Amino acid sequence: MRKVCVVAKASSPEAIATAQELADWLRRRGLEVALDESIRRAAQDASAPLYHLGDPCDLVVVLGGDGTLLSVARNLAGDTPILGVNLGTLGFLTEINRAELYPSMVQVLQGHFETEERSLLDIELRRNGEPPLRYRVLNDAVVAKSALSRIIEISVRVDDHLVARYRSDGVIISTPTGSTAYNLSAQGPILFPRLTVMVLTPICPHTLSLRPLVVPDSSRVEVTLETQREEVYLTLDGQEGTTLGFGDSVRATRSAKTARLVRISGRTFYDGLRGKLHWGE
Amino acid sequence: MRKVCVVAKASSPEAIATAQELADWLRRRGLEVALDESIRRAAQDASAPLYHLGDPCDLVVVLGGDGTLLSVARNLAGDTPILGVNLGTLGFLTEINRAELYPSMVQVLQGHFETEERSLLDIELRRNGEPPLRYRVLNDAVVAKSALSRIIEISVRVDDHLVARYRSDGVIISTPTGSTAYNLSAQGPILFPRLTVMVLTPICPHTLSLRPLVVPDSSRVEVTLETQREEVYLTLDGQEGTTLGFGDSVRATRSAKTARLVRISGRTFYDGLRGKLHWGE
Amino acid sequence: MRKVCVVAKASSPEAIATAQELADWLRRRGLEVALDESIRRAAQDASAPLYHLGDPCDLVVVLGGDGTLLSVARNLAGDTPILGVNLGTLGFLTEINRAELYPSMVQVLQGHFETEERSLLDIELRRNGEPPLRYRVLNDAVVAKSALSRIIEISVRVDDHLVARYRSDGVIISTPTGSTAYNLSAQGPILFPRLTVMVLTPICPHTLSLRPLVVPDSSRVEVTLETQREEVYLTLDGQEGTTLGFGDSVRATRSAKTARLVRISGRTFYDGLRGKLHWGE
Amino acid sequence: MRKVCVVAKASSPEAIATAQELADWLRRRGLEVALDESIRRAAQDASAPLYHLGDPCDLVVVLGGDGTLLSVARNLAGDTPILGVNLGTLGFLTEINRAELYPSMVQVLQGHFETEERSLLDIELRRNGEPPLRYRVLNDAVVAKSALSRIIEISVRVDDHLVARYRSDGVIISTPTGSTAYNLSAQGPILFPRLTVMVLTPICPHTLSLRPLVVPDSSRVEVTLETQREEVYLTLDGQEGTTLGFGDSVRATRSAKTARLVRISGRTFYDGLRGKLHWGE
Repeated sequence: MRKVCVVAKASSPEAIATAQELADWLRRRGLEVALDESIRRAAQDASAPLYHLGDPCDLVVVLGGDGTLLSVARNLAGDTPILGVNLGTLGFLTEINRAELYPSMVQVLQGHFETEERSLLDIELRRNGEPPLRYRVLNDAVVAKSALSRIIEISVRVDDHLVARYRSDGVIISTPTGSTAYNLSAQGPILFPRLTVMVLTPICPHTLSLRPLVVPDSSRVEVTLETQREEVYLTLDGQEGTTLGFGDSVRATRSAKTARLVRISGRTFYDGLRGKLHWGE
Repeated sequence: MRKVCVVAKASSPEAIATAQELADWLRRRGLEVALDESIRRAAQDASAPLYHLGDPCDLVVVLGGDGTLLSVARNLAGDTPILGVNLGTLGFLTEINRAELYPSMVQVLQGHFETEERSLLDIELRRNGEPPLRYRVLNDAVVAKSALSRIIEISVRVDDHLVARYRSDGVIISTPTGSTAYNLSAQGPILFPRLTVMVLTPICPHTLSLRPLVVPDSSRVEVTLETQREEVYLTLDGQEGTTLGFGDSVRATRSAKTARLVRISGRTFYDGLRGKLHWGE
Repeated sequence: MRKVCVVAKASSPEAIATAQELADWLRRRGLEVALDESIRRAAQDASAPLYHLGDPCDLVVVLGGDGTLLSVARNLAGDTPILGVNLGTLGFLTEINRAELYPSMVQVLQGHFETEERSLLDIELRRNGEPPLRYRVLNDAVVAKSALSRIIEISVRVDDHLVARYRSDGVIISTPTGSTAYNLSAQGPILFPRLTVMVLTPICPHTLSLRPLVVPDSSRVEVTLETQREEVYLTLDGQEGTTLGFGDSVRATRSAKTARLVRISGRTFYDGLRGKLHWGE
Repeated sequence: MRKVCVVAKASSPEAIATAQELADWLRRRGLEVALDESIRRAAQDASAPLYHLGDPCDLVVVLGGDGTLLSVARNLAGDTPILGVNLGTLGFLTEINRAELYPSMVQVLQGHFETEERSLLDIELRRNGEPPLRYRVLNDAVVAKSALSRIIEISVRVDDHLVARYRSDGVIISTPTGSTAYNLSAQGPILFPRLTVMVLTPICPHTLSLRPLVVPDSSRVEVTLETQREEVYLTLDGQEGTTLGFGDSVRATRSAKTARLVRISGRTFYDGLRGKLHWGE
């Protein structure tokens, strides 16, 4: 391990301060360090190399919460391991907390860690007569009406087979990683992270018998907006979004890329569930 | 019964044609008839008296679906009985279908009908330093985030007692009448129409243990937006809406007014449930 | 206040020891004390007057959990106030915990407390050609199949109107008090305790569109078993039970009696929800 | 194809009559036919060869409903294709209805059909000091309390990692095939049939945040009863059952065997969902 890149949650002074401290710690150990724009700006240190997502390096350390890590993982090309450090309560994606940072870094620098591959979805927005828009998500792609719109109708197809026309507030297409995010609020099931599946979960379905549906991620899921005149949006990982019109369709397929998360804490996925969801009580 | 007012779903040519036919039928029986703007315009008949919601009359006949009736009932002042005629499949609010129109009208003109009072909610939107905005709903008042926003935080109080801070997509404050509408899609319970209660149903709650809560409608329910920077809306009967800002609060109390629905079909509320919700199968 | 009766959870040595201590404390203040059988037996003190549920007294103190209080409230005739003391974590019915016992008793003896009336249901099991069996519940009456049976069919009627035939594992008829018990596990709504309603909640319904239904407690709810050959039970407050056969029907109506709970802690119903259901987090 | 075995729902005279007719039809085409005990008994025809589940043959035709097919598939050793014929409404497992029987048989005899492999689970009941009891299921293994018992506590482990202690009425371990059966009534997700997963769905959980959990079927799921004194049962495909005691554990792993279902109708899994679950309306 020769080069480490550090990304911090831009709106968190604590994350930025921790990033600067970590950068010093790494440099003292002879490592090359690159910092993202927000850290450099805060440090008023234009001498540190600037890290752009996707620049080659041996490890990306993300200081912040699940949201920051989501944004890094979605945009990172290639196989660089990502270590998530949570500065508040532990999330589902961040692996360690602040107190565990330096002991974990010592281990990581010695190569004593594993990585876990999380699948990503390629999302394609197809609109009549236009070249498709392409996105990538680690958690989910959501097609949903605006708060002021009425119920919308969406046709859902899997590998060109009609599943149903959903009359609902919308539908969530989630990866296993995303199953503990918005999907869970919409009554979707929890999926073990390494499953090769997607789950399609209706949001507030008008048809009361609609249920979450788990399909292979080798399938092509296609969601087409059948409603005119209502405001409808496509949202990606809850962070980016765009408007949808009548007849637009959103296709989801498994991405050839994956996100590679550093695992070092010894905590299992189930430990996370118990802790975060109060299953222990 | 001397004067009948007729309202039709403005976007339905069938509703407007039926309204004109009904107006003739009523006039032939010596009744005074007033028509709403959309019918008069379609008929190009400026001689027919114009009906404004709330003008005094002995009966309002609404031709359309639950949506049209909702809009009439919410805006109608006073005790005028409302007869809902559904031109498609029967709804929860419309009492008869097209084929039953004239036999039912004969009975109604003879006074052979009952009415059912449905409670309304007075909704007050309070914003720091501004005079409160007032609305009335027959179904529900909904506070919900826009599709592009993240999870929002809302504090819910009943008679000044904190229930909880809801982290969710929003919350529905529903009357018994509204319990079969949006509330049902959000996993809320069905409430018998004449109960003197409201139900508070979270929309896609992040806190998985949140559940619908039924409270007396003599209570004052208060929902306050605790989140900054996200787009949040107040929607009234799914038909009108306005933006909410940080610290704005929405108060719901039982209205002194009610909606008075004509009951003549002999169908019970439970018959409606079985038919609409496929409970019979 | 002249006479206090004390009941303890029979299987809890701590409850029984606390009961004996409380009895002494009360006698030192000149009050007459009666003890239930389990306490007298444990104390080997045959001199203390024996308390049978329903004997006249001015206050019943129940030491144990919600289960013990449920059993006392269901069987107690008349208007005697009941104070529930929880020796573990606070329940929904018990009002105070162990540490609050003596300060609360001082207040109660001075008359500084309120009482809250909770409605009870009269349950009647009717079987062809037999006199009806009668029960009373504070929480719920449940008709449910045994673990080894298949799905059963139950017809549900409210005031002789058919609601539906439920194909399910069973149905819960719950009071507002019972809404936080089994009803909640079966996806039923939470009902404010003083509402004059019942909720009918299907257990694992085969018909996916079935939903909990809230009706006035002035109604007569009737549940009839339509299935032959499967083992089905009626359970009362989760504590007593009996077998049901084909054609047997269970009727629920509001009882003329109520349970009168001492309120002294200042905690609201909503405080209880937040604490017990982790709504605060 | 030389030998066809026919099984009929024993309690259905229509199934048995259809079986006899089919047997004649097959013999006229020169095929060897074996009949299960109930058909032979009804036919009073001791000359027809008797079919025991698992005897070698080229095709098993099952006349009845999903229940009959379930019982055949669970007990059938080896790779014999099974064709399910539903005499009532189409189920999820039966492939064709009565009217399609002979046209489909013509195609099947010509070899114009596909088969779909459905995974089975091996279930092992382990009790201290006793040799394990072994079962096989196509749908599900359910650990659940009796109607008269209180809530039970079950610890759930996946590959020796504790998931949680479930306080509930029980838990369902379901295959993808079983996901449309009991699992669906208990709010579990629908799983595409060929997924290599299991779903663990709590029944009426007391812990409100418990959710269905989908895990790889290469895992070993272990459910251990932690409650004493309550009646608890293990049920297999809803058809067989046995009592569980404190400390007993139930292990589920993917079976080396599969069930091989004949596919000939052209109907997809999604067509079945729309039809059976009213998703089309």
